[in-house]
Amino acid sequence: MAVLTMGALPLGFRFRPTDEELINHYLRLKINGRHSEVQVIPEIDICKWEPWDLPGLSVIKSNDPEWFFFCPRDRKYPNGHRSNRATDKGYWKATGKDRTIKSKKSLIGMKKTLVFYKGRAPKGERTNWIMHEYRPTTKELDGTAPGETAFVLFRLFHKVEEKNDAVKYDELEQTGYSSAMIKSSPDDTSSDLMQDTVSSVTHSQKPDNFMQNDQVTEISLPERQFEFV
Amino acid sequence: MAVLTMGALPLGFRFRPTDEELINHYLRLKINGRHSEVQVIPEIDICKWEPWDLPGLSVIKSNDPEWFFFCPRDRKYPNGHRSNRATDKGYWKATGKDRTIKSKKSLIGMKKTLVFYKGRAPKGERTNWIMHEYRPTTKELDGTAPGETAFVLFRLFHKVEEKNDAVKYDELEQTGYSSAMIKSSPDDTSSDLMQDTVSSVTHSQKPDNFMQNDQVTEISLPERQFEFV
Repeated sequence: MAVLTMGALPLGFRFRPTDEELINHYLRLKINGRHSEVQVIPEIDICKWEPWDLPGLSVIKSNDPEWFFFCPRDRKYPNGHRSNRATDKGYWKATGKDRTIKSKKSLIGMKKTLVFYKGRAPKGERTNWIMHEYRPTTKELDGTAPGETAFVLFRLFHKVEEKNDAVKYDELEQTGYSSAMIKSSPDDTSSDLMQDTVSSVTHSQKPDNFMQNDQVTEISLPERQFEFV
Repeated sequence: MAVLTMGALPLGFRFRPTDEELINHYLRLKINGRHSEVQVIPEIDICKWEPWDLPGLSVIKSNDPEWFFFCPRDRKYPNGHRSNRATDKGYWKATGKDRTIKSKKSLIGMKKTLVFYKGRAPKGERTNWIMHEYRPTTKELDGTAPGETAFVLFRLFHKVEEKNDAVKYDELEQTGYSSAMIKSSPDDTSSDLMQDTVSSVTHSQKPDNFMQNDQVTEISLPERQFEFV
């Protein structure tokens, strides 16, 4: 497995691609078979793993509870209207409205929020594992052209239990993501996720299985890594 | 001037330190004279420059409208209750409440939001230049111990005019900062700044003077830059 540790970068560097970058760069290259250019995000079959096993499969190793994966698009449901989202121990369930991703005002993709439940529907037990599924919507990235393979991209989050009921503003602020200055709109149906995930960032807790991979393969970056001009 | 370009890192890597990292790592080392370890953030006298000249002084060169600077703490107002914040062409004015920065529930610093106005108070014209000022509050970082120098840290933002009055949720979402899942609390007095700055991230506009420095000096990072294990 490929591993990219962040320790040698100055503290504070993080992999924080925008939604537009995930669609127009990462998914575009992956769908077009240019795998070696997007090795920083590994390819897995998301439903063959339990969520707590996924961080160990991440190429980028950091303390932030956030990880990225490509997943082949399920052929059983090519329209994206439904997907088989069951794992061995539970299932991923969509929550809230899908959101549009635009580039220069054009629709390029959709983002769906999923929550993992242990057990079987409708009696599953909600967990703190959350994913955003990114799906391109343009014809050119539907995976049907010669040389293309259909992929979606998952951004996985793990939230940590808060002792207090309320996450206060100051606590949100100290995560440092405040600079992005995001404000959720009143129609945001996943605002509870937002609050929860912030608290996990605050605690920077590692999942137990973090960095416990024994099969490690070296991969290489472009020669110039940091450029000082 | 030292320059660190991001081009050779995989797309999506950004300098996004948390508030806690800015106080406990960057300000701590700077105040203790360990300048070579925090070269990624340059030292300037913030009020000797107009805000639109500051991006050109940033060590980290990216398209994101966000930049970091150390500034010697003003000796005229050592208590931090007031500072001389006038530049040649205008002045920085505090807005909203100062916010606390905590580490493991202990107060370690304060964050103040400032907006730049052109002209002279009280008739200044509000601009799109915004700063967060980070100030340590612990005794050990007050800059009075032998070998210490008092510093604050500024995180500068430039927002871009929105054509539409409303920034819609989908537009916020595509900035990619959604993963941080920040929600502003009702008592956040600077929520208008939040909205504005998000729009600037969406547009990724460079200030005109960006990268127009002619005095460039090479600085070096630790030998291991990216570690592939």
